[in-house]
This record gives sequence, structure tokens and C-alpha cells, in this order.
Amino acid sequence: MLESIQSPQDLHKLDYNQLTALAQEIRDKIIATVTHTGGHLGANLGVVELTIALHSVLNSPEDKIIWDVGHQCYPHKLLTNRYHKFDTLRQFGGISGFPVPEESPHDIFRVGHSSTSISAALGIAKARDLNGEDFNVVAVIGDGALTGGMAFEALNHAGQLGIDLVVFLNDNAMSIAKNVGALSNYLNKIRLDPALHKARAELENFIKKIPAIGGSVSRLGSSLKDAVKSLLPGQLFEELGFSYFGPFDGHNIRQLQRALRDGIKRGGPVLIHAITQKGKGFIPAEKNPVQYHGLGPNYGNSGHENENDQSVSFSAVFGTTLVELARSEPKITAITAAMPDGTGLTEFANTFPERFFDVGIAEQHALTFAAGLAVQGMRPVVAIYSTFLQRGYDQILHDICLQDLPVVLAVDRSGIVGEDGPTHHGVFDLSYLSHMPNLILLAPRNGAELEAMLKWALAQDHPVAIRYPRRETKVDSSLVFDPTRMIDSEILVEGADCVILAVGTLAHTAVEAAALLQPDITCRVVNMRLLKPIHGKDLDHLAQGTDLVFTLEDNVAAGGFGSSVAKFYAAAGQKRVVTFGYPDQFIPQGRIDELHDLYGLTPAKIADAIRQHLHAHLEYRRS
Amino acid sequence: MLESIQSPQDLHKLDYNQLTALAQEIRDKIIATVTHTGGHLGANLGVVELTIALHSVLNSPEDKIIWDVGHQCYPHKLLTNRYHKFDTLRQFGGISGFPVPEESPHDIFRVGHSSTSISAALGIAKARDLNGEDFNVVAVIGDGALTGGMAFEALNHAGQLGIDLVVFLNDNAMSIAKNVGALSNYLNKIRLDPALHKARAELENFIKKIPAIGGSVSRLGSSLKDAVKSLLPGQLFEELGFSYFGPFDGHNIRQLQRALRDGIKRGGPVLIHAITQKGKGFIPAEKNPVQYHGLGPNYGNSGHENENDQSVSFSAVFGTTLVELARSEPKITAITAAMPDGTGLTEFANTFPERFFDVGIAEQHALTFAAGLAVQGMRPVVAIYSTFLQRGYDQILHDICLQDLPVVLAVDRSGIVGEDGPTHHGVFDLSYLSHMPNLILLAPRNGAELEAMLKWALAQDHPVAIRYPRRETKVDSSLVFDPTRMIDSEILVEGADCVILAVGTLAHTAVEAAALLQPDITCRVVNMRLLKPIHGKDLDHLAQGTDLVFTLEDNVAAGGFGSSVAKFYAAAGQKRVVTFGYPDQFIPQGRIDELHDLYGLTPAKIADAIRQHLHAHLEYRRS
Repeated sequence: MLESIQSPQDLHKLDYNQLTALAQEIRDKIIATVTHTGGHLGANLGVVELTIALHSVLNSPEDKIIWDVGHQCYPHKLLTNRYHKFDTLRQFGGISGFPVPEESPHDIFRVGHSSTSISAALGIAKARDLNGEDFNVVAVIGDGALTGGMAFEALNHAGQLGIDLVVFLNDNAMSIAKNVGALSNYLNKIRLDPALHKARAELENFIKKIPAIGGSVSRLGSSLKDAVKSLLPGQLFEELGFSYFGPFDGHNIRQLQRALRDGIKRGGPVLIHAITQKGKGFIPAEKNPVQYHGLGPNYGNSGHENENDQSVSFSAVFGTTLVELARSEPKITAITAAMPDGTGLTEFANTFPERFFDVGIAEQHALTFAAGLAVQGMRPVVAIYSTFLQRGYDQILHDICLQDLPVVLAVDRSGIVGEDGPTHHGVFDLSYLSHMPNLILLAPRNGAELEAMLKWALAQDHPVAIRYPRRETKVDSSLVFDPTRMIDSEILVEGADCVILAVGTLAHTAVEAAALLQPDITCRVVNMRLLKPIHGKDLDHLAQGTDLVFTLEDNVAAGGFGSSVAKFYAAAGQKRVVTFGYPDQFIPQGRIDELHDLYGLTPAKIADAIRQHLHAHLEYRRS
Repeated sequence: MLESIQSPQDLHKLDYNQLTALAQEIRDKIIATVTHTGGHLGANLGVVELTIALHSVLNSPEDKIIWDVGHQCYPHKLLTNRYHKFDTLRQFGGISGFPVPEESPHDIFRVGHSSTSISAALGIAKARDLNGEDFNVVAVIGDGALTGGMAFEALNHAGQLGIDLVVFLNDNAMSIAKNVGALSNYLNKIRLDPALHKARAELENFIKKIPAIGGSVSRLGSSLKDAVKSLLPGQLFEELGFSYFGPFDGHNIRQLQRALRDGIKRGGPVLIHAITQKGKGFIPAEKNPVQYHGLGPNYGNSGHENENDQSVSFSAVFGTTLVELARSEPKITAITAAMPDGTGLTEFANTFPERFFDVGIAEQHALTFAAGLAVQGMRPVVAIYSTFLQRGYDQILHDICLQDLPVVLAVDRSGIVGEDGPTHHGVFDLSYLSHMPNLILLAPRNGAELEAMLKWALAQDHPVAIRYPRRETKVDSSLVFDPTRMIDSEILVEGADCVILAVGTLAHTAVEAAALLQPDITCRVVNMRLLKPIHGKDLDHLAQGTDLVFTLEDNVAAGGFGSSVAKFYAAAGQKRVVTFGYPDQFIPQGRIDELHDLYGLTPAKIADAIRQHLHAHLEYRRS
């Protein structure tokens, strides 16, 4: 049946039994595909019925559905004419794992980062009203995404504008990890407290029996009505100007359809609360929603990932090292924004629960909370993915760097991350961090350096950011950086014709490129380690004997490390500086090696480019 | 009495009448000083009693008071040993108009941007508990600042942690403008609904009289208690895990003292709601709180600013132009984050109320809301000060640029803003915007260019940012840029020895510098206008005939315009590029001209620097 669905309009013709059968087909297709291609599993299995309910009531794309975060859009994609391309999911040139307007008119707004959907939906709804148009706008947001501050900003504005807008709260009590925060407790209370439900019924009953007591009865009546109303769940949203509907079973298509119809009929800002289960219908994912949030390619149906046990991720090195350091230093605290697992902090959380803080999807708060800890003498380490740290740009600059506070930023998933694509690549951090006063910016080329840098960073009285990629590495040596001195660069290869100043793991790429150029051309290859502040004396020293300098970074070339280096040498005007990095465009999805090749960051392509520049340079000097 | 206060401990010895007299002295001192030095008036007059209550109950600096935004810290400064320096307020080298830890141990956390105080206070409180210390932590936050999403993120985390922390809500129903949003409506309801207060009392009374009705009475009793509780104001905060106290008269010292003592005794996260009046005690400010939010220097007690009526601010040019354009283009919408007045949008708001959106202090939402409007065919213009736009870095990149949406960013208060100091200088925008793909970045040198650029920007199918300073300008000519082509640079002065590529109003500084160098040295001076994307062919053309290039921008040199230019020329290695901008440090407070002089951005200092570089360059070429 799924195969034959050309458009979501086709769902309008199906009866309830057919829709239920369709749900099973969608589930089967997602499990079969994602265990092969990799991708998000749990979240998608959780919204199958919700998606069917939406598309069987609404008329997409006239009606607009905006998915928050967007990694739960697979059922939506399967129902909006992408069934036949579904095997290309997350592949280079294939369909995205997130909504992408260029891919389909049913994908209304590009997403990837959390908590944007209500803002976008409100903008779309307001434009509709200004244009005198008539359609429905539905934002689908998880309870995790609702902890992001901008979702609250949007609720606050929507409640004031009072326009027709449906917010579908997909409440699975999880972000990627278990959801946290007072709001989560509140939602739990609504969901789980049978006493509250019973009390509500009894009170309503009781009020009916109240006899008139003197003159104040009518006022009392309305007071009591208010009192009853406030016993209803969802009062928090009602206070913000929303009509609350729920909670509903998020796997009951009929209930959800009815709720959506009722919500639309009510008009104004409406919040529909659906309780879903992450991983629904796939037992391993139901049992272990964190592990099954996202899968790597070729996961296999067994539920065990085929990993190379020899190597270890940078995230794991970070986590293990931090636990070791924290054993002897009680001031160390660790903070994550809903990513304890991904950032490698699970062991820390288990070992030092009182010094570990998962603040929810709230990067801004995470950073200023860390600043507060630092003011009071703690040594906070904030681990956030490069792309999500963008949310905290102002807090890093204004709350941490301006006060020169000793907060360590562990900038995970720097550089290209692969199949998640442009919303997730960490290719801007060198550009947004390099101009922040007081900040020290480091990049390790392997696990041993990450260990040593983390230790060094925790001994500084300044903010330090360490950026490292989503990559396997090894810790096959031990290394110590003197905490009383700045970290030195490391010359990996000596050479006379030119110098390559490389950032992080790309130092290895540079070494390979240099090997390819030998023996005709010899390059000095430098692992920079310290990216900011850059010291002129060091740069002069590193480029001694050559007037051709290459920089190499897994970041956009604009405003990054190469840009700092070019600016330095250009002031003397005596060297040619060529910066290897990404061009001024967004990077598509694909495997890391594919994308490095596409953008010329493989050893062979770098060697070719260096050869050409060297020839051009020699010709220029001869002329 | 005020003069003799050495430390806030001295307040503990004063009786109520003395504290009331002290309040009057503080008010007089603030009015006398601020009308002379300039600064924030209304907010400070509103918190006089609140500050006295805090310092007479707490033991600062052992107890920590964290001021949100911080421009309401004048009474605090007067009570914490800065009375005798108060005349230096906001002057270069003088005391800051914001809390600054380097200035006093009573200033716990550096602030300036909104909505950070609860995060910082929570970090400090948590560090206290981890260190086994014992002191009180109080965050003082306005109802305006509470609309910022990160304040909600912090409430959510605080409610979960459940630790001792007092949030003092200073509710004056204003941000700088009238406060907006559903939360504001909610607070209004609490404050203003006498029926609610009366009903509460009656219901409590009524419950006492209820006779036992069968077996369910005990359950009903507790249900009704819940019902009563939920009739209490502040339920929204209670749902987030806070104990709510209030509302209280924010000008009644005794009431506030008692509330604070009660709140501390209660323990856990406590929210104390104080109703204050902005401008309290100064009739003109009470009557016109927007105008009296902040004053320029030498305002005079008359309440009329001495303005030069000949010239007009860039903000005013922006506002007037947008109104004109919006008359013929119904798709134009304007968005501000609580700054309708400052950004020049008041006339737009009055002329096109249905197309104007003040979203509150919520820059993140403002930008993604604009993206939503753009998706649906509107032409949104978002006007935000450069320093506050930092809050929306991720939304510009991820929600606007990634989708290449036609949103116009009016980046007001770019460059040095003067006496507000490092938290408010707009010296990072060229660095945080220059690496965003798809974004077109412009800077006008005068009002005529701003007009023409705004018009041009609204005809593009891409995001366009226009950055302009807090400065007077003139619109004494008219100018049109062809919307089908990129905007060209403008050669203002011809010259042969070197070229100066200047950004925005600094083009005039460059012209003056070039004049000082004549006749010995002739400089080509270029008004760049278009800062991104930069086109190699243009740069080659502009620097033809010289191998010495200077760039000039009112921004940190790192990652900004000069950095892009240096990177371009360095790839060929044939030119010397010297970038004039700010060094890698935070810029202190002071008058704009003072600070330009300090950082070498005056015509005389630029001319000197050019002369020196030119000599060095000639010597190098001779060698």
C-alpha cells in the first residue's frame, strides 16, 4: 500500500484499518532502510501514527507542517512521494534525513537544530493572514526541543498574537537522552498522575452539588470554575495564551485525528499534547531508546553495531580523560546540553553525578551556567557539538570571554560530520571563535594530544576551546604540555620548498600530501595545535626559509585559521599564503571521505594544488 | 546620609524612616548625575527601594546579588562604596554603568545583555553547594528580560535542581519599550485583577465552612487545596518548580524586606514578584518611561535634549526610508526585539501596525520568525543592534542563510557605541557575519547610501545585512543602486602610492587621512560599500598600480573585512596588506572619538601609520 501512495491526499481515501496497516508498512520500511543506511530510528518509529494522522486530516502542501529538529521526518517523506528514493537516504546526492524544501514542496522549512519550529510556523501563519490566505499551520515539536529557550520565546509571541496555529507536542519524555528540567517534570505530572485526573472528575462532580450559599454564589461559581480549569492539565500553556488539548495516546490515529480537527476548529493558538514512545514497534529500540536514537550504516538487524574495537572516538578520549582528571580535582564539573552519550560524558555522569549537569537542549543556559560556576571557583567543562555551540555564540563572547573566565569548551563534531549534512557540519567554529578576545583555541591531531590539551586547559586561568572531529583516533602515546607555557606547534616533516600549517587531524593529511610530493618538492608540515592567539614570532619562525605558506583546516576558509595566518603574513607582504578549507557555501551530506575529496582536502588533491601553486610562484619570482 | 555609607552593612543599622530618607537621597543623586553624565534613568529610579531592601537584608558580597542586564545597578553602586566616584559614571576611565567585578567585590557577574542572570546565579548557587559553602544568591531580573529564552532555560534547570536560589522579579511592565508577549499579559493579570484576589479570599473562606460530605472528603479537601493554590497568582512559576511570593509593592521597603526574608526561609528556588514603576519619583520619567530609559550627556533637568536638528541618526534614516518603501510594497514587514524606538521603527509601528512586530527581548525568535515570514513570500526587515544580534548568530546562519531567504538585517549600533562600554560595542558583527554563506553584507557611509542600500536589499532574493553606526548623518543627496547588479565600490580620492579600502563611515576618516598625507603621499581612497562577497576582480582593479593596501573598519581586525581582503591578496603574495581595526581585546567605555583615538582610528593616527608603513615598504623594496 505504501508503495502506491503518490501524495498525502491518498490517505484521505483510506479507512482506519487501512491506515493502521499503513503504519506497519512504514515501520517496516524505516527499520529495513535505516539499519542499512544508518540514520535516526527511534524518533521516526515514535511518530508514525502522528504523521499519518496529520497527513490524513491536513492537505499538505497547502497546509504547512513544520517539523522541529526534523530527524523524525522519515514517515513524512515516505508519504510525500519519496518512497522510491528512500534507499538513498543520507547518501551523497540522495535524499536528506531532514526536511529540505528543495527536495519536496511538502518540506516547508529547513531544520536540523532544535526549537525553531514554532517561530517558523508563527512567521508562516502570520504571513498567511497578512496575505489573506487560508490554510492550516502545524508545528510538530518534541518535549526535548521545547526546553530550548527560543521555543518559549515563540510561545510567548504566539500567545500574544493569538492567531490560528497548531503546536503538536510530541512528548516522548526524551531528547536524545532522557529529557530533563522542570518542564519535563511538569509534563510527566500531566501524563502520569492518575490522582490528578480523578480529583478533577470528583471536583467537577462536587461543584454540581454545591447549594447556593448567600449572595456570593455567582462569583464563587466562577471562581470555582477557574479553580477546576486550573486543575486541568496544560494550565502552563493556557497561561501563555494557548488552548490546550490532551494528553492523547500518540499511537492512536483516530484520537489524534479528532484532536487535530478539534484544535483547528477551536482556532487561535492551540497546543495538542500527544504521548508517544520512542522506538515504538521495534523492541530493541523501545528498550534502549538512547542507543537506537541514531544508527551508523549497516547496523544489521541484530542490534549490535559492527565497530572496530581497536580505535576509539575523540569523544570517548575526552570522556575518559575528564573522569580521570576529576578524580583528583573536585572542582571539575561537566555540562552537556542533552548529549551525555554523544559527547562521551556518560561515565562522568555515572561517576560524579553531583558534578554533572545535563541542562536539556539549552546551549545558551549551559554556557552562562558554566560561567556562574567558574565565577565561584569551579572548573566547568562544557561539551557541545560544534554546530550546536553556534546557539551559544553570544554567551561565549559576552558571559565567558569578556570576564576571562576559566571555562573549557569541548567542541565536539568539528569539521564535516558526514550524512547529517549542512545543518550538522561543524565547519564554522574556527570562524566564530577566532575573533573572541581572551579565548585560547586548540585542536589536537590525535587522542594523546586531546588528553594533554584537556589537562593543560584545566590549568589555565582563561577560557580555552578544544575542537575535535567526529573521528576515530588512538591514544598510543602519552604527552604532557607545560601548563605554565603556551602550547607549541609540532613540526612533523621537514622541508624547504614550502610550509603547510595544518589544523588538528588534517595534520596527517598534510603529512601524506608531503610524502606524495617527494622527492621533487619538500614541504615542512606543521601541526599547529594552538590556533588562537597566533604569535607572530612563531609564524615567522615556522615559515623561515620559504615564501610559500599553505594552511589546512576542516572549516570554511573565511574567518578561520588560514585567514588569521594570511592576515599576519600579508602585513609584511613577503609571503604567498594559500588557505585550504571549505568555500563560501553550505556543505552537502555525504561520507566524510567523499566530501573531503569533493572539496580538495585529500592528500592527492592537496599535493596537486601545492605543485601548481609552487610552479606559479616560481614563475612569478622569475618574472 | 548616603555620603557616609561605606558598605551595605551600614544599612543594617538604619531604621525604616532612615531607609526611606536614604531612598530619596539616592534618587536625588541619580537624577543630578545622570542628567549631567547621561545614562540609564528610569530603570534605576524604579529599583531604589528594591535595592535598599536587598542590601539591608543581605550581607553583600558574601551573599551574591546578580543584576540582569545591569543598567539598573546605580542604587547598588551608590550603596557599595562608589558614591564618591559616581560623577565619573560612564566616562572613559570612570565607573561603568553596568556591574563590573573588577570595579567592586559587590559586582558579582558582568552583565549588559539581557536574560543571563538566572543562569549565572544558578551556577554560583550550585558551586556554593558543591563547595559546602553557605550564602544567599539573588538574581534580580526584569519582566522584559524574562521574555528572553535563556531565562526560561534557566528557570527550567533551576526548578529541576531545586536548590536555594531567589529570583527577584522586578516587574515594571516595560523592557525599554512597553513589554510584550503572553507572559507579560500573564503578569498583568496577576497584578491587575482585583477580582482574582477577592475570589481567592472568598474561596479560602468558603472552604473552611465546607462540611464533611461522605467518605471522599479528605481527598476532596486536598483537591480543593490544590484548586485554591492554583487560584493563587504565580502558578506558572510554581509549575516550573519555584515557590512564588507576591505580588508586592516594589516601592515598599518593609514589604520587600519581609518577602526576601520569607523567601530565604522557604528555601529551594523562590520567585519574588515585585511591582515597580520605571522612573519612580521623577515626574517626567514616570510619564514618559521610553524617552527617559536612557539619556545622553548634559540632558539638563528641563527634560529636553539639546540636539542638533540639522542632522539625523542612521536609525532615523532607516526608519523613515522603510516607511516610504512599505507604502508601495505591502510585503514589507518590520521586526524588532524590544527596541522599536532605538531602531527607528516607531513611525513604522504607528503607520503599519499589522506589519510591525515587537517580539520582546527575543532575538533568536525574531530572526526565525522572519525566516518563516520570508518562506511565505513576505519581505521581513529585522532591526537589531549589532551587539544583541550576537544572540541570533545560529538563527541567521541556520535558519536564514542556509535557506538563502530574502531577510534584510538592519544591523544598527555597529562599531563603537560609546559610554555603554564593552557589553554594547558592536565591534564583532563583521567577523560573525563575514563567513556566512549566501549572506550579502553592506555598509553605507552616509544616510543617502543607507536609503539606497535598503531599497536595493529589499529587491534581492538573498539575505542582506546592512551595518551602520550610532552616529548622526545627512541625507543631502539621492542615490540609486541597480537592483539587478551587485553594488559597486566608490573611489572617493585618487592616488598612486597606496590604496585605503574603507568600511562605512570610516571612508570619511580615510579621506581626511589622505588629505593629511598630501602632497608627499597620494592615497586612493575607496568606500567599499559591499563587504561580502568580495570579488577578486574588483579587488585587483582597486589596487592596480600599488602594492600597498590598507583596510579600515570599525570592528575587531580578526575575521572581519580586512581579514577577507588580506586573505585574498595573500594568495597571490604580491601585495602588503595592513588592516586597521580593533585589536584582539574588549574595548572599554568612553566617547566614540576618545576610543577611536585610543585605537588609532583618527585621521591623524591613520596618516601617521600609513606614512610609516610606506617608508618600511619602500625600504624593503630597495633592499
